This record gives sequence, structure tokens and C-alpha cells, in this order.
Amino acid sequence: MTDVAHMKWWGWGVPDHAFTADDKPKLAPFIYEAIRVDITVPATPPPDFSSLTIPASRLPDGLQADLVSAVGSQNTTTDDLERVVHTYGKGVRDLVRIRGNVLPRVPDVVVYPGDEDDVVAIVRVAAEHGAVVIPFGGGSNIVGALEPLPEETRPVVSLDVGRLNRVLSIDAESGLATIQAGVLGPDMEEQLNAQGWTMGHFPDSFTHSTLGGWIATRSSGMQSDRYGDIADITRGLRMVLPDGDLVVLRPLPSTSSGPSVREMILGSEGRLGVITEATVDVHRLPEVREIQAYFFPSYAAGIEAMREISESDAAPTVTRVSDAYETAFSMATGKKSRGVSKWVTKGLTAYLKRTGWDLGQLCLSFIGYEGSPTHVRYEKALVGRIVKRHGGLGVGKGPGALYDQKKFDTPYIRDFLLDRGAMADVSETASPWSRMLEIHDTVVERFHATRRELGLPGYIMCHLSHSYHSGACQYFTFALTDSGPDALVHYDAVKARIQQTFIDLDATVSHHHGVGEEHSPWLEQDISTGGVRLQRALFAGIDPDQRANPGKIVHDGTPGVSTNSRPAQ
Amino acid sequence: MTDVAHMKWWGWGVPDHAFTADDKPKLAPFIYEAIRVDITVPATPPPDFSSLTIPASRLPDGLQADLVSAVGSQNTTTDDLERVVHTYGKGVRDLVRIRGNVLPRVPDVVVYPGDEDDVVAIVRVAAEHGAVVIPFGGGSNIVGALEPLPEETRPVVSLDVGRLNRVLSIDAESGLATIQAGVLGPDMEEQLNAQGWTMGHFPDSFTHSTLGGWIATRSSGMQSDRYGDIADITRGLRMVLPDGDLVVLRPLPSTSSGPSVREMILGSEGRLGVITEATVDVHRLPEVREIQAYFFPSYAAGIEAMREISESDAAPTVTRVSDAYETAFSMATGKKSRGVSKWVTKGLTAYLKRTGWDLGQLCLSFIGYEGSPTHVRYEKALVGRIVKRHGGLGVGKGPGALYDQKKFDTPYIRDFLLDRGAMADVSETASPWSRMLEIHDTVVERFHATRRELGLPGYIMCHLSHSYHSGACQYFTFALTDSGPDALVHYDAVKARIQQTFIDLDATVSHHHGVGEEHSPWLEQDISTGGVRLQRALFAGIDPDQRANPGKIVHDGTPGVSTNSRPAQ
Repeated sequence: MTDVAHMKWWGWGVPDHAFTADDKPKLAPFIYEAIRVDITVPATPPPDFSSLTIPASRLPDGLQADLVSAVGSQNTTTDDLERVVHTYGKGVRDLVRIRGNVLPRVPDVVVYPGDEDDVVAIVRVAAEHGAVVIPFGGGSNIVGALEPLPEETRPVVSLDVGRLNRVLSIDAESGLATIQAGVLGPDMEEQLNAQGWTMGHFPDSFTHSTLGGWIATRSSGMQSDRYGDIADITRGLRMVLPDGDLVVLRPLPSTSSGPSVREMILGSEGRLGVITEATVDVHRLPEVREIQAYFFPSYAAGIEAMREISESDAAPTVTRVSDAYETAFSMATGKKSRGVSKWVTKGLTAYLKRTGWDLGQLCLSFIGYEGSPTHVRYEKALVGRIVKRHGGLGVGKGPGALYDQKKFDTPYIRDFLLDRGAMADVSETASPWSRMLEIHDTVVERFHATRRELGLPGYIMCHLSHSYHSGACQYFTFALTDSGPDALVHYDAVKARIQQTFIDLDATVSHHHGVGEEHSPWLEQDISTGGVRLQRALFAGIDPDQRANPGKIVHDGTPGVSTNSRPAQ
Repeated sequence: MTDVAHMKWWGWGVPDHAFTADDKPKLAPFIYEAIRVDITVPATPPPDFSSLTIPASRLPDGLQADLVSAVGSQNTTTDDLERVVHTYGKGVRDLVRIRGNVLPRVPDVVVYPGDEDDVVAIVRVAAEHGAVVIPFGGGSNIVGALEPLPEETRPVVSLDVGRLNRVLSIDAESGLATIQAGVLGPDMEEQLNAQGWTMGHFPDSFTHSTLGGWIATRSSGMQSDRYGDIADITRGLRMVLPDGDLVVLRPLPSTSSGPSVREMILGSEGRLGVITEATVDVHRLPEVREIQAYFFPSYAAGIEAMREISESDAAPTVTRVSDAYETAFSMATGKKSRGVSKWVTKGLTAYLKRTGWDLGQLCLSFIGYEGSPTHVRYEKALVGRIVKRHGGLGVGKGPGALYDQKKFDTPYIRDFLLDRGAMADVSETASPWSRMLEIHDTVVERFHATRRELGLPGYIMCHLSHSYHSGACQYFTFALTDSGPDALVHYDAVKARIQQTFIDLDATVSHHHGVGEEHSPWLEQDISTGGVRLQRALFAGIDPDQRANPGKIVHDGTPGVSTNSRPAQ
């Protein structure tokens, strides 16, 4: 069998790694206060794989034989664990459903192409047999973009691009690297770093997501302020259309060749075919890379400082401010302070109190800098003046370095909470600067109103990140304590309230997670019915039989067919 | 009648303005040497309007009555001058054809909507009557995007957006302005400047092109290094589809809502409908704005310096290097030097000779800076070190200021040359840095080979502009001396050779002029047949009857149907 590694079937990440509260003395009281969960009592572990009811593969013999002759028997599998791993992404709905043994439709076969020709062969075979093809990268999707429609009667092929994992070439003069779409973040950066380069794209899912997945969902990384979103980074593309025809876009810095085909493939979430390769902007590893931490006296002050930075002469790599709720959570996950660091923390707290800060409003911010030592000094000075003008205070490199080390571990906490009867999830959006505070405050207020109506304990927190000239992303994380039979119905009500608030306040349904199944009910409100007509025209023209990841982004039937708890639009 | 002003029907720009050689003593010998044209002998002026053979309007009475009731009789005209002005853009093929009385198909009616509701009414009326609608902005297009297909038997409506000319609102906090699509560059900047803002978008056509036209063709302005191409600047959009339905995209800094509808409308050249309004990034007028001039010892050195700047910590607003041929042309258009400036020029020439420069290889470069005085000093120092490393020499602000003042006057020279029996045109492209010099040298070589085969005198020159991380634009201007009956056939052969060279060397068919009719034969080679399938799917789905500017970008019949001299693909 192929040696493509996968995440845990029931949760995030690698098998031997989990979130722990053991080294975080302040966490237990914080979580109890926030969501009434006592993390000190024994938890309920996820179920055994053997307890799942897995529908048998409906793979027709002819299709199986043709797939095997296309890519070999070692790269074609109907193994139950493989099929289950390829059924869902890692959204909280996915985790709740799989823990709850909800598997209405599982892919009938998983295939692992070794090159683009294999992909062409697979989609041609699938087309001949009238099968559905769902491309699969790292499996980290959290908006329901990977699951087969439950009512799907045609054979379902999960096409896992995990073997397409090589950096093929680097054009050093142009700062361009040509890379296969199935490479995972760390594997890609390792290959680039070995030659002195970086792509500078570090989404939270980095360790378990692929280049092709980033492109298919319009991903954005923590250093997007400098390096751009994946849509900016991606210059050339190769995609296999549902009938096996190829789209080949050569790497160009810019072009005026009609409606952008590159920007049609970006965000296509498998509905136009399979992305096999991209040529992306890469950069020399910077001389200096620093993440400085700052405190702001309020979230409003933090937002305003980020806005001013975005219109200033400075161009930092990272701009991030947590609201007071997220700052409190960060403080609560701190490890036991010892020696000097304990003294610094105490000293700082005392200083803030003495100088009149309201510690309940305290907001932690990270700002990243890269370049020559002179350049980093110059930019820090520019930013420092803006921070000061908004009452902020620099607190050094320590917290930033820690954040930088631990930033990819956050998703593990969801499994920790699920083991303890609480669901944690995220909703993120982007908006113009002028609406940001209103969006924040309204989302927080409506979240609590909704969860109170449901009688559920819950917590919500947020950070601003990914600044642009005209606005930024706001990323909400929320938790609801509910392990009853209606947990997902309640989750959906809360999630829907948040998404609808984004739309009501002229923000977008998603800044960088994509649409999938989960966000599709809001798409017509986000980009207008006319806008959805353009997307539909594209999908219908390229995939008239709806065999390429059907039902995602825009639906041709009822939105939300894959769940029984979808909010009405 | 409406008071929307138009360019000369036979040439570029406003009636009382023309290019003159009278104040440029070095020009006549330069032009004679370059293209064997003696500009000192009397020229042939363009023909009288009365000499044109203008096909009568075929507007059906019912359609006329419905258009009049939609927008009023004062905004509906079948006047011959109006119809001729709306027949072509301002490419050299357009100018040669109109001077040659080649008017196979002229719009049957020109309508001037006053708001978006008028546009909806017009396209609905056109749909009911089975008429074709061609949106028209400033009329500056040079790739044949505005002309009706010669074989078009349906009524042709030219929809002139010139009355949609207002800046509607500014969101000062977000740096966003909502602006009607028909506003001309200077009119728009005047309205923005009055409130302390600029859009920072200054294409060469600026004085005679519109916001909607920039969006429809994916325009790029001289300060794109800092402000971005129009595709980056445009955040929100409103478009009327061919059946009157609306696409409304709210202004967002970034979004992950499926294939980008914004990027489908950008570059759509009228094939998806009529752009009525956009919300764009605007910026506070900078404290300091400077364009510094530099000399490089060769074009190769200039390219390499621009490349290094693009990967450095500096971020100038303008990066531009002329090759030796364009530098020689610039020198030849200099006005009579007097006093100090004469001494400086002589002194500089003497200095360059003394220090071993090959004056025949001399390349003039402009680099622009904006920001606080400190920031401009900082960036100039960073750039200065790179320039020096490549043997370059700073020569102050004088030439840059002159260039800045005169940059929009260049197109007038085409009419001056046409009056004297020579055709001048441009071909521009973008490519990765690693291919730029090869593209430049090959284009120059093939241009001369082709024009020699045709037995024609000719000149070609080029500049690099619009730098990006991975590459830049190269903009070629060429002239051919030929006023015979086959002039356009010869022009097409030369133009085709240049465009094919771009494609052969992995550059794009156009960086910022669009596709129209003129570049469409190369589109499948540029974005692949698969890529064109995506565009066709979009056009066919949204405009199944092909009534929205048919035949542009991709053809459903034979490419180049509007000319008898289109090169075979």
C-alpha cells in the first residue's frame, strides 16, 4: 500500500500528540468559569474504530479494474479505515458526526495517483463509469468540502493527491517554485528551505494541509500581510478537468487575458477538477525574522492601530490583535511561570495596574517583521510610534516566539474539549476597517444571546489578523457545552447566527476557509444571486454531469442536503 | 443632446492638441534615420468627415422607441458622427481603417444611460429586440474590443457610460471610494483629490479612459508597483448582466467564497454585461512624491537592478527602464536646451564619456518614491545602493518631473506619424524575470527580420515597467513606414510576429491592454485550450445568445473575422 500518512480518523493531527492541561495551572478554573466544564474529572475518550457502522463499498467491479489498471492495485484501496478517513474533513461537525457513528455515505474507493498522467487516467475512468470524483489533500477542511453527498447513488472516488509531494524546480532569478499540489506544508518548506527559500505561507492548518488544498480553498497564512494570500502567491497552475482535459497556466506576474482563469481555479474546491501542480512565488529566507508582542488597552485601540499601520509607510509581515476574551484565554494557557519569567509577569501586571490599565480589557497583539537588521529596526520604529499613539505598550519578543512555536497546535484543543462534552469551532470573516468593531461586538452579543436561548454555557473570543489596505480578517473561536442528542442542531443554530451576522454587516461568509457545504447557504447573500449565476455557469459548462465534487459551494438541489440540521436560508 | 465629450473621430485626444516637432530640434534627423520619414515636408492631413461612406443605421423603429422611452430622446442618438466615434477604439488598425474609409459595420444607435436603472432598462430592451450591446467608456481601447463584428445582422447598440461620472462616496476609515464606472481619469482624480484622496492609477490612456474600461480590460497604471493593478485596486463591483440581472459584490479586502466572481468581471471586456460601479482602494495624497532618473550602462544592467529592487526591502511606486533604443528616442524628443540645463546635459555627456560609458548602450530609468520625507530618503538610499551595484548613476529629479508631466501625451505621436506615412503601435507583455532579456532581444531581432522581409523601414524600442515579485512588464513601441494599400497586412504580419514571440518565450499575450479582437488568436496558446474552455463556459452560460459584445476575447467562429488580414493561428 501507499505510505501517505493521514490524521487520526476521529480528530486532529498525529496519533501521539494531544492537547494537555497538565502544565497549565490556570486553565481548569478558566474553562470552568467560561463553559462550565470541569477538566479535572476523567474524560470520555473517542470511540473505537471497530464500533463504527461503515457502509460497504459500492464500487462496481469494472470501475475497480479500470482504476487498478490506471494507477496499480497498491494505489487503489477499499479498506474501511482509508474510506472513513476520506469521508470527512476536520470541522467540529465532522468530529461530532464521526464520534457519533454518523456515516451515511463513505467513498467507495480511495486512489493515490503518482503523477498528473495518473490523475488524467483516474478522471477519465471515473467519467466512463459515471462516477463522482472528490479530490482530497491533507483532509484538514472544516467547511464540509470533502464529504460525499449522503444521497449520492453513483460510485464515489476519493482522489488523494498525497503522493504528489515534490518541489519540482526553482527559478531562482524569478523567485518562482514549481511544486506538486499534494505536498504538505512542512514537507514543502523543508524542500524549499534546503535551497534557501520559503513560500511564506503558514495557515493554522499548515502541518496537515497541502498546496493544492490551499489553492482550492483560497487559503491565507499568518504572514499574508507581506507574502499575500495564496491567491497572490499562486502564479502558474495545472488542473485536470473532469473529462481529463488539461488547463495549463504558465507562471506570469500579471496578465490581461480576459476573465482570470487562475482566479476561477482558486477557490474551486474540486468543482472544476483536480489541481495537480502550481508555480508559486518563493522568497529568500530573511536575514531577520521577529515577532514582537504588544498590549493594547482595548480591542478598539488595537484595531485602530492595525488600521493606521496598514496606511503607514511600514509593511510588517504579521498584524494580529486578540480581543480581551482571547487575551484572557491566552493568559490562562500559560505554563507555570518560574524564576525571572515569573517576576517579569508579576512586574508587568503591577506596572499596568499602577499606570491605570483596565486588565479586563487588556488585548494582546503580535506584529511580525522581516528583512535586514536595519529594515526591521526601521519598521519597528514606525510601528512603535503608531502603537504608542493608541495607548499600546511593547512587551518584547518572548510571547511572540512562544506563539510562533505553538501556533499550529491550537486545533488539538477541539478534541480535548469534545472528550469533555464541549464543542469548539471557528468562524472567520473579512470586512472593511470601518465595520470591524461593530462586527466584533455584534457577533459576540448574538452568540451569547443565541446560546442563552438554548440554555447552553458558551464562550467566544476573537482576533484580528491578515491586514489589507481597506480592511482585515476577524477570526472568532467559540465553544458550546453540549453533548446531548441535539448538540449539532444547537451548534448549527449558533454557527448560523454568527454567519448571518457577518452577512448582515457587509462582511464575507469566509475570509480563508472556503464555502464547502457549511457556508453555502449564505453564498447568494454574500456575492449576490447574479454572482452565483456566474459560478453556476462555470460549473455547469465544465462539469455538466456534476461529477466533480458535486453539491459544494453552490447547490443544485437544496443547500445543506448532507445534514438534517441545516439552518434555513 | 448629451454633453459627453469624445476624442477626435480620426485620432487620439482632444481637438486642439497635437504632437509637434517644432520645439524638438533633434527629432527630424532621428526620425529620418530611424524610419526614413522626412517630417520637414508637408504632411497629409486626415480626411474630412464628409468623405466617409457611413452605412445607414439599421435601427428598427420598435427598438428605437423602446430605447427612447428607457433613457429619453436626448440620450438616444443615430447621428453619424456619434455612430462613427463609437465604431472603433484608437489602435493603429482603427486609425488606419477610419482614415481609409473602412466602415463595414457601424453601431446603429448610441445610448447614454444616466444611472444603473437606465442600464438595466437598455439591456432589457435590447434583449427583447434581439439586439447586440457593446459597452463604451472613453473609447481608448487599442485591441479591437469596441467594434461591431462586420457580419453582424442584428441591431447594434453602443452603450456609452459617459454620464456615469461621479464619485458617489468615500469610506475614509477604510480607504475605499465608490465610483460610477463611466468617469474619466482626470475627472475622477479631481473629485478624489478635492477630498484629499487619490486612487493612484495612472495608465498611459488616463486622460481618455474610464474606471469601467480599466476594470473591463485589466488595466495597469504607472504606479502599480505600490498601488497595484486595477485588479488589486477594485474591491467591490456592480454589473448588469445581459438579461438585466445584477451582480453586486460588496467591497471586501479578501474573501474565500469560491471561484472569484470579481476576477471574472475584471477583464470581461463587455462579454458578461455592463460594469456600472466599483468600490476601489483610495489613498491619502502622499506627503512627498518624487520620480528620480538614473542611467544604466545597458538594458541588461537595468533589468537586473529592477529585479533586485523587487526582492529588496524597498518598495518604490514606479520602476521603469528604457532600452537603448527608447533612450535614444527620448533624447531626440528633448527640447532645445538653454542655460543651465544645456550645461548640465553637456557636462553629463562629457562625464559619461570620460568614465567609459558606451553612450550607444545608455538606458534611462525612472524610479518613483512616495511617503514621508524620511521614508522617501530611506527608500532612495536602499535603491541607490542597488543601482550603484549595477553600474547605474543617479541624475536627479529633472527628467522624472518632465516625464511625469508629459506621460499622457505619447499617444498623439501616432497621428503625427500617420499624417506622414508611418504606422506606430505598441505590444506589451509580462514574464518572469528570468526570461526578460531573451524576450526583449528576440522581439527586437524578429521585428527587424520581418520588416526587412517586407522591405519596410522600421524602428522598435522598449521599456520595462510594472515590477512584481516574480517578473515585470515589457512595453514595446514600434513604427513601420508604409502608407500603401497593403499597409495593414504588413502591420499585421509584424504585430503577429511580436505576439507570437511573446508566446513562444512563455510571456503573456498582454499585460494590461486586454484581448479584444486583436489578441484573441493567441489566447489558446497563452492560457491553454482548457483555460479558454473555462472562459467559454462562463460566456455561454451568462450570454447564450451572444448579444454582449460578441466575438471578443474568444471567438465562436473564426478568429479575426473583422479583418481580412488576420494572421493564421
